[in-house]
Amino acid sequence: MKRNIRIAAIVNELVSNPSTNYSMNYFCDKFDISKPSLSEDLQLVNEVLSIYGNGYIKSTTGIGGGIKFIPGISTDDCFIIQKDLANRLSDPDRILGGGFLYTNDILYDTHLINKMALIFSREFSSVEADYVVTVETKGIPLASSFAYVMNLPLIVIRREAKYAEDATVSINYFSGSYERIQRMSISKRSVNPDKKAIIIDDFMRGGGSLKGVTEILQEFNIEVTAVGVATAQRDPIKKKIPFYLPLTILDKIDEENKKIFVSINKDLKQY
Amino acid sequence: MKRNIRIAAIVNELVSNPSTNYSMNYFCDKFDISKPSLSEDLQLVNEVLSIYGNGYIKSTTGIGGGIKFIPGISTDDCFIIQKDLANRLSDPDRILGGGFLYTNDILYDTHLINKMALIFSREFSSVEADYVVTVETKGIPLASSFAYVMNLPLIVIRREAKYAEDATVSINYFSGSYERIQRMSISKRSVNPDKKAIIIDDFMRGGGSLKGVTEILQEFNIEVTAVGVATAQRDPIKKKIPFYLPLTILDKIDEENKKIFVSINKDLKQY
Repeated sequence: MKRNIRIAAIVNELVSNPSTNYSMNYFCDKFDISKPSLSEDLQLVNEVLSIYGNGYIKSTTGIGGGIKFIPGISTDDCFIIQKDLANRLSDPDRILGGGFLYTNDILYDTHLINKMALIFSREFSSVEADYVVTVETKGIPLASSFAYVMNLPLIVIRREAKYAEDATVSINYFSGSYERIQRMSISKRSVNPDKKAIIIDDFMRGGGSLKGVTEILQEFNIEVTAVGVATAQRDPIKKKIPFYLPLTILDKIDEENKKIFVSINKDLKQY
Repeated sequence: MKRNIRIAAIVNELVSNPSTNYSMNYFCDKFDISKPSLSEDLQLVNEVLSIYGNGYIKSTTGIGGGIKFIPGISTDDCFIIQKDLANRLSDPDRILGGGFLYTNDILYDTHLINKMALIFSREFSSVEADYVVTVETKGIPLASSFAYVMNLPLIVIRREAKYAEDATVSINYFSGSYERIQRMSISKRSVNPDKKAIIIDDFMRGGGSLKGVTEILQEFNIEVTAVGVATAQRDPIKKKIPFYLPLTILDKIDEENKKIFVSINKDLKQY
């Protein structure tokens, strides 16, 4: 097999299976090559990935060691995606009144969502996590895409305890957006205790709902190590959770003059 | 730039952006090469993709013409994924009673879900569609992954009409699983009339819920051109929808002897 072809095949396989561990032997057997030849190929692939900021190949040693493709996104592309998101959010047609915006078209645009997931994976690359957690419904595609990129199990917290969730733990929390007490439930079988989790959601106002997520996870001694949201509202400045990383910030909705002010989180600062 | 490197970069970009149209000029400018050189490169990439059944590069001509990567999955891999799904579903620990199974771990395993989405994209490659439609909640990651692969907008039908969905159309339908009338709502803004849609869902018993989806889409004169479900229950044989493609079939749950019988849909037959 020609080297060109082999390299194309390696890139295809690795990029199609992000954060998935491969033994060196897997590729050596597949292409009938020696380990030094494979190492040369991988070095070239890494070079290409780094030129475009599209991630890198990580080597792990020891028992169960091997290689895995860690997807990435360049600083420029992060900025482009954040600007795209901010521009789309700023469309005054989104105004529904009462501080609500129509965002389905954005949150169900899976190609945009995938790029947003890549930004979170870049920013949370050194964060320890066993799970990706979200609350139904609109944040599920984003959380799912992030879980895919990170190769972590997804947990979806439900609004109601459904029969097919088996035994659940439920809590009540105060939602500032809806100005009332709401309820959320987690399937006991879906989590193992004493783990770490990254929360991903589409929108945060005061953080009441995400504080609820943190509390329900505490029931299993699961520590929240990072929180990523597509958009956080500027006010209230003081949120109910201690840290979060928004891609964009909803500064103000001026319903009277039909204007929405959205800024991007420059340098992807963690609040 | 060496040809090796260029090919790796092309594969990386195309595979990372499935079903996305690129002009030939985009790559010619990016790599500073002529169209004939690019065509040679693309031919080689296509060769590699076809060896492993991982899709192909489709050329489109005319205004707005160019190339796009259509992801694929080999016949062997379809079978492996279906068997994996069937094996996991057969675990008797899933039995919840009343004909329900615990399936969160499967439906939120985004890497398995991605492969299932590839099977649907393979089977529905010649089906016309403008939207991918699902009903919340457990089918969302699968539908989202399929929408990503096909590069189509996702529509999530809600159980309740939420304020942030703007104006909605709601219908009632009879759910055989829950043996009661249930309600579903679709955001009017999320769809344009006179289009075509593929429905994707996690599970189908009698098809009542998916018949509801078909009916709510009819309100917008949206035709359902295909239906894909991860698992369909064998009984009742006569479903409420005219056609569907299941990856696996739940033959029987023997609660007394704690056994679950699941078969795979050989040759991916459309029922």
